[in-house]
Amino acid sequence: MNDYLQGLSAAVDRELLVGLDPGRGTLEAAMHYALTVSGKRLRPLLFLALLDACRLEALRHVGLASALEIIHTYSLIHDDLPAMDDDDLRRGMPTVHKQFNEAVALLAGDTLLTYAFEKIAAAPLPPAQVVEIMGIVTRCIGKEGMAQGQALDLEFRGDAAAIAGIHRLKTAELIKGSLLAAAVIAGFDPGRRLLLEQAGIALGIGFQLADDLLDITGDEQQAGKKLRKDSGNQSPNAVLYFGLETVRARIDGHYREACARIGELGIDFPPFLSLMKTMLYRSQ
Amino acid sequence: MNDYLQGLSAAVDRELLVGLDPGRGTLEAAMHYALTVSGKRLRPLLFLALLDACRLEALRHVGLASALEIIHTYSLIHDDLPAMDDDDLRRGMPTVHKQFNEAVALLAGDTLLTYAFEKIAAAPLPPAQVVEIMGIVTRCIGKEGMAQGQALDLEFRGDAAAIAGIHRLKTAELIKGSLLAAAVIAGFDPGRRLLLEQAGIALGIGFQLADDLLDITGDEQQAGKKLRKDSGNQSPNAVLYFGLETVRARIDGHYREACARIGELGIDFPPFLSLMKTMLYRSQ
Repeated sequence: MNDYLQGLSAAVDRELLVGLDPGRGTLEAAMHYALTVSGKRLRPLLFLALLDACRLEALRHVGLASALEIIHTYSLIHDDLPAMDDDDLRRGMPTVHKQFNEAVALLAGDTLLTYAFEKIAAAPLPPAQVVEIMGIVTRCIGKEGMAQGQALDLEFRGDAAAIAGIHRLKTAELIKGSLLAAAVIAGFDPGRRLLLEQAGIALGIGFQLADDLLDITGDEQQAGKKLRKDSGNQSPNAVLYFGLETVRARIDGHYREACARIGELGIDFPPFLSLMKTMLYRSQ
Repeated sequence: MNDYLQGLSAAVDRELLVGLDPGRGTLEAAMHYALTVSGKRLRPLLFLALLDACRLEALRHVGLASALEIIHTYSLIHDDLPAMDDDDLRRGMPTVHKQFNEAVALLAGDTLLTYAFEKIAAAPLPPAQVVEIMGIVTRCIGKEGMAQGQALDLEFRGDAAAIAGIHRLKTAELIKGSLLAAAVIAGFDPGRRLLLEQAGIALGIGFQLADDLLDITGDEQQAGKKLRKDSGNQSPNAVLYFGLETVRARIDGHYREACARIGELGIDFPPFLSLMKTMLYRSQ
């Protein structure tokens, strides 16, 4: 990542911990722990870089950016629980239920989801924009979005045709939502929002395919989590169903699609374009 | 409950299921199941009856009322999970993780919380009021509210002095929040809000004490859940620490306090007063 993106990422990291005191009890310590374990912060970076691309003062909205990462973090904590994916490691550190316990991890996830909406409600924006962003985000992560994707993932029993839908819901919806939140602030009209939505979905699906690829070809040490779990578990890893070459070709296709839509929007801000590329062609 | 309150309750019951189709997959079926299992709907009733008491058109806000019940329902689903209170029955029916499974119950709770925020965002109110209500509700149920109360409940190891704080956070905060949401719509000034807040806390703590009392003296068949679990589990049931008579006296005290504050506010709408009484002196 270039200096610009690293600067934004550092601002998000700081914002994530503002007002959280791990000394104030187990719940807040678990929330703090989950947000401290370093992530790529891709959703807030997309949101902030798009604001910058639209010549808006991105860092004014770092609170809202952090809410997107907090939502992502809640979903990871709950996905890692024994009843779900049962993972012990995340980003090279013990998952929250391993570091604390299952009950605390459950509550920390719940509380982070709540905290994200507290942060959205506190955004320094006209109330109508805040309400619109709340509507977009809740739909992207709810019963017809990310949570539904997770439910379908749980039910997956090897039907290759279901994979694209799972990827779209589980991963692409929140990425789409992060871009649309910026579009509200930038005042995009419906036509431009539609183009951005298409870019977000292509980017999100491509990102999940890149993740599937790394899960098969990646290095566990670098990834900081257990890899190749999916092969035994009937998880919807596209590589297992379509093979490496097909998945690589699909990533290329989604990348071209995302770039085309962003091009139509007239967005040529290099850090934003480089972020899209990083998401789809990362090595860890 | 009188006809007026039963009418409101039926409207809430209908609203809770609008747009939810149990045929649309396991996740929505679990959400639908949890909302169908009949509850007392006390939080939405308090909210709606207070609006009526302020001569506002209560049923216009049944969507927001249902969001309060949806939040309560999410908290029950997660509290019932094996990692938390491990309950098999709720309101006479199998808990969500018993009826479905743990992963589905976890996701259904997450999705209901999200859905509640979606409903708040969609409320037919000026955006500034929606944002204010969102801020109030998230603070009441978050890391310094209901979720913190649940965390302290989990950590409870028999320290009687901690019980009042747990009751306040775990139970009273959302009840307070339900009243304050109505106060935003009714345009209460800060002084009136403070009185209402005090009434809400007294009502909420009294309600939890009444629940503790019923847990010891109640009938399992009528309650529709396992009672007297607390005695073995170091749960913060006030009766176990302070005795029946003291708890009854405290309920009376909280009832008087709530009535006094509501009286100072000039609210003399009989159904609202009767609802408060029902909450603190119920037999099931």
